[in-house]
Amino acid sequence: MEELEKEELQTRVLNAIKSRNAKELKEIFDTVPNIDIAEAVEEVDDVASLLYIFRVVDNEYSAEFFAELPSEQQEKIINAFTDKELIELINNSFADDIVDTLEEMPANVVSRVLKVCPKDMRKDVNTLLNFKENTAGSVMTTEYIEMRENTSVKDAIATIREKGRDAETVYTIFVRDAKRTLVGTVDLDELIFAKEDEKLEDIMNRDFVTCSVNDDQEEVANMFKRYDLNAMAVVNTENKIVGIITIDDVVDIIVEEANEDIARLNAVSSMDEPYLKTPIFKLVLKCAPWILVLMVLQVFSAMILSRFEDSIGQFAILAVFTPLIMDAGGNSGGQTTTMIVRSLSLEEFDKKDYFKVIWKEFRVAAIIGGLVSLFAFGWLMLEMSVGIISTESVIERATAMGANPYAYMSLVAALVAMTLFVTMIISRLVGCSLPFLAKLVHLDPAVVCGPITTTLVDIISLITYFLLWTQIIGPVLGF
Amino acid sequence: MEELEKEELQTRVLNAIKSRNAKELKEIFDTVPNIDIAEAVEEVDDVASLLYIFRVVDNEYSAEFFAELPSEQQEKIINAFTDKELIELINNSFADDIVDTLEEMPANVVSRVLKVCPKDMRKDVNTLLNFKENTAGSVMTTEYIEMRENTSVKDAIATIREKGRDAETVYTIFVRDAKRTLVGTVDLDELIFAKEDEKLEDIMNRDFVTCSVNDDQEEVANMFKRYDLNAMAVVNTENKIVGIITIDDVVDIIVEEANEDIARLNAVSSMDEPYLKTPIFKLVLKCAPWILVLMVLQVFSAMILSRFEDSIGQFAILAVFTPLIMDAGGNSGGQTTTMIVRSLSLEEFDKKDYFKVIWKEFRVAAIIGGLVSLFAFGWLMLEMSVGIISTESVIERATAMGANPYAYMSLVAALVAMTLFVTMIISRLVGCSLPFLAKLVHLDPAVVCGPITTTLVDIISLITYFLLWTQIIGPVLGF
Repeated sequence: MEELEKEELQTRVLNAIKSRNAKELKEIFDTVPNIDIAEAVEEVDDVASLLYIFRVVDNEYSAEFFAELPSEQQEKIINAFTDKELIELINNSFADDIVDTLEEMPANVVSRVLKVCPKDMRKDVNTLLNFKENTAGSVMTTEYIEMRENTSVKDAIATIREKGRDAETVYTIFVRDAKRTLVGTVDLDELIFAKEDEKLEDIMNRDFVTCSVNDDQEEVANMFKRYDLNAMAVVNTENKIVGIITIDDVVDIIVEEANEDIARLNAVSSMDEPYLKTPIFKLVLKCAPWILVLMVLQVFSAMILSRFEDSIGQFAILAVFTPLIMDAGGNSGGQTTTMIVRSLSLEEFDKKDYFKVIWKEFRVAAIIGGLVSLFAFGWLMLEMSVGIISTESVIERATAMGANPYAYMSLVAALVAMTLFVTMIISRLVGCSLPFLAKLVHLDPAVVCGPITTTLVDIISLITYFLLWTQIIGPVLGF
Repeated sequence: MEELEKEELQTRVLNAIKSRNAKELKEIFDTVPNIDIAEAVEEVDDVASLLYIFRVVDNEYSAEFFAELPSEQQEKIINAFTDKELIELINNSFADDIVDTLEEMPANVVSRVLKVCPKDMRKDVNTLLNFKENTAGSVMTTEYIEMRENTSVKDAIATIREKGRDAETVYTIFVRDAKRTLVGTVDLDELIFAKEDEKLEDIMNRDFVTCSVNDDQEEVANMFKRYDLNAMAVVNTENKIVGIITIDDVVDIIVEEANEDIARLNAVSSMDEPYLKTPIFKLVLKCAPWILVLMVLQVFSAMILSRFEDSIGQFAILAVFTPLIMDAGGNSGGQTTTMIVRSLSLEEFDKKDYFKVIWKEFRVAAIIGGLVSLFAFGWLMLEMSVGIISTESVIERATAMGANPYAYMSLVAALVAMTLFVTMIISRLVGCSLPFLAKLVHLDPAVVCGPITTTLVDIISLITYFLLWTQIIGPVLGF
């Protein structure tokens, strides 16, 4: 929605509530998506107005609308509801939405809701509340339609008509045999296309896929993407269905997992709420620890640099190029890490592909190293000869030794170029190896790789630079 | 699928093809998802075997299976197909899948396919081929079900039974009035729940949302996420429907857009094919230009450093801390850029929220700056006093001036701490402003921000460092 439309809608909604105009409010709920209305009432905080909305709108909207509200408003409403109203809300809600709501509520609200919950629902909610975060169990719901394989199409449609409204989706029907084992799925459209007297076993898909409650939600999302699913069964070890996951939840998972990769690769803790709603101190907590850890890791490069204080003191231009070398190494290692971490997340390859990857990276790195060092040599010669980078110390030295300053400059440029060649290769090999290593020891590749790659590459490139200086170029220049 | 299962399936499929065992192959297609079979035959490159598969499997699988094959295999198959076989494949395919295939084919293949295409389909395919990449038009399909608002539920279901197989989805029915204007949508489940003699206008959702052909696919994906949609109508300026987008395409868009953000924030061009399938020279092209551009930008920090060669020559420990300062600034700016770019992508806020964001960032930065500079002071004192970082030049100077070396060390640590405080604030302000600026001039925030933030922050922090040195700390130490 455009900014203007948003403001118009907000005025309209707030006016309807303020003037207690039930007809207008009903009309709004009929023609505007629930989430847009929820955003429009974001700043309404008197309980009477919030309750008014729920007393006016139809049941078919109220539960969905409730699910879209921020948790502070939800809490107020639950506290103000009579038991009867609360039960009605619960009956119109899906178990997974109730669980999402309760996860944000204080204990007394949770226990009141569970107390008024109908028995079946309470059991489902309790079960769902206990699954570990980010597992298939924690995102599944328990309201699905399951039928026997010998059900006729006609009976199946009748059952859907009767019970479908309580299910999270009727677009996928799960088919079980006499032992309650999941044997197939039927899409609703197949049911519509089929003849009335056919049996589900005649039309069901037998090439369905499933997951189990403890599977990582990221794996589940990858399966939805791979197989273009609308819904997937979550099964126990005996292949009996215990819940289902639907595509709308998967869309959220995909965004969440991508955000996590993005955040971690860039040394921020991932955001679990929108930026503008995140309190200042939480933002500090998400950022500061990384900066501090990375600073502690920087001790290594400072240590190495300080060991070569003498060389720097004698020939200060050496210090001018260290940031360039360290940055190039960090950027290059970061590129590889990014590609590999993302491919591992999307399950494009697995641990066993490591040798394929490292051989590919080696070849890529050799080419890039060649290009970069050639370019750097030319570029630095240009910068130094036109004086963009001042070369006092080089000219001084050359004069003192009675040599041509350009010859000295070209040796300095060659030193940088050689270091860059080595750095490009090492950074990519380190950058592609660490994510695999992390995966091998069951750590999140994204979280450990960025900082460690940079630190390792920094150390190696600085040592290379100063070794090439003290062993080869320095002596040539008479140091 | 586990590695082992994959290999087993591959052996089974290849054996069935090799021994021309039609029964086994049919059984495989009945019980295994198409994409898994497509992967299993990845290395089959003799045309006879590929054609054999298509001659054996049922029509209901063949088009979907074809869509999952890599384009080299698709090309071989199209070239080997008779016109009759090709027409059959086209008739069983959706227009958007045909377009996806054709986009990867050489011109002669495209023209042959278009020639045998039935007239209606040819028109649709041509239209779709002409939409700009990444727009709603380029991802929509033209096969949807549209009905008049006065259609009865009974007739609607009959129509779906008759024509539904040709539509990309029957889960959302689009409802139009006499002027062909889109007036509502009906979900298939609502149709099933409704009474046979009700009219679509009685049960349709009037709170539907739409997009237009030129909308960015990222916006479309955000709408699907926001409104939990299964399908959305793409309309022209007169609100007449011209195509639809379905959730399975949106899942791919979300992953694609997240990959793009991740890649750009980390200075890689985004990958349009899986890593292992990307040729070496393409990987070089994706990485090398960034490294070269960033190196050219590094000229600024080298320039500044070289202007202070004198200071460095006199007091080499100054060079020891420059990487630390530049890294901290780069990391901190990167954190902010990451959060803001991602929030802008997900449309969590808009341009008008800039002042809210910058005020928030300023407060966060002040706190982090305080923490980081305090920590850095203590940490550097520790490092220097235990000798992890060697302090020859400091001790030499202190001795020469007859001062306490620890007093000198603490002044150096204070210099770094003060610089860090300034750097933390500037880096976050720059890091949050640039994405907004990019958006204002219609550039992709992710692509311009990373490198420019780092360069700007590098320059500002180096200047701060050396100004504090030459103006305040240096004179105190007698330089």
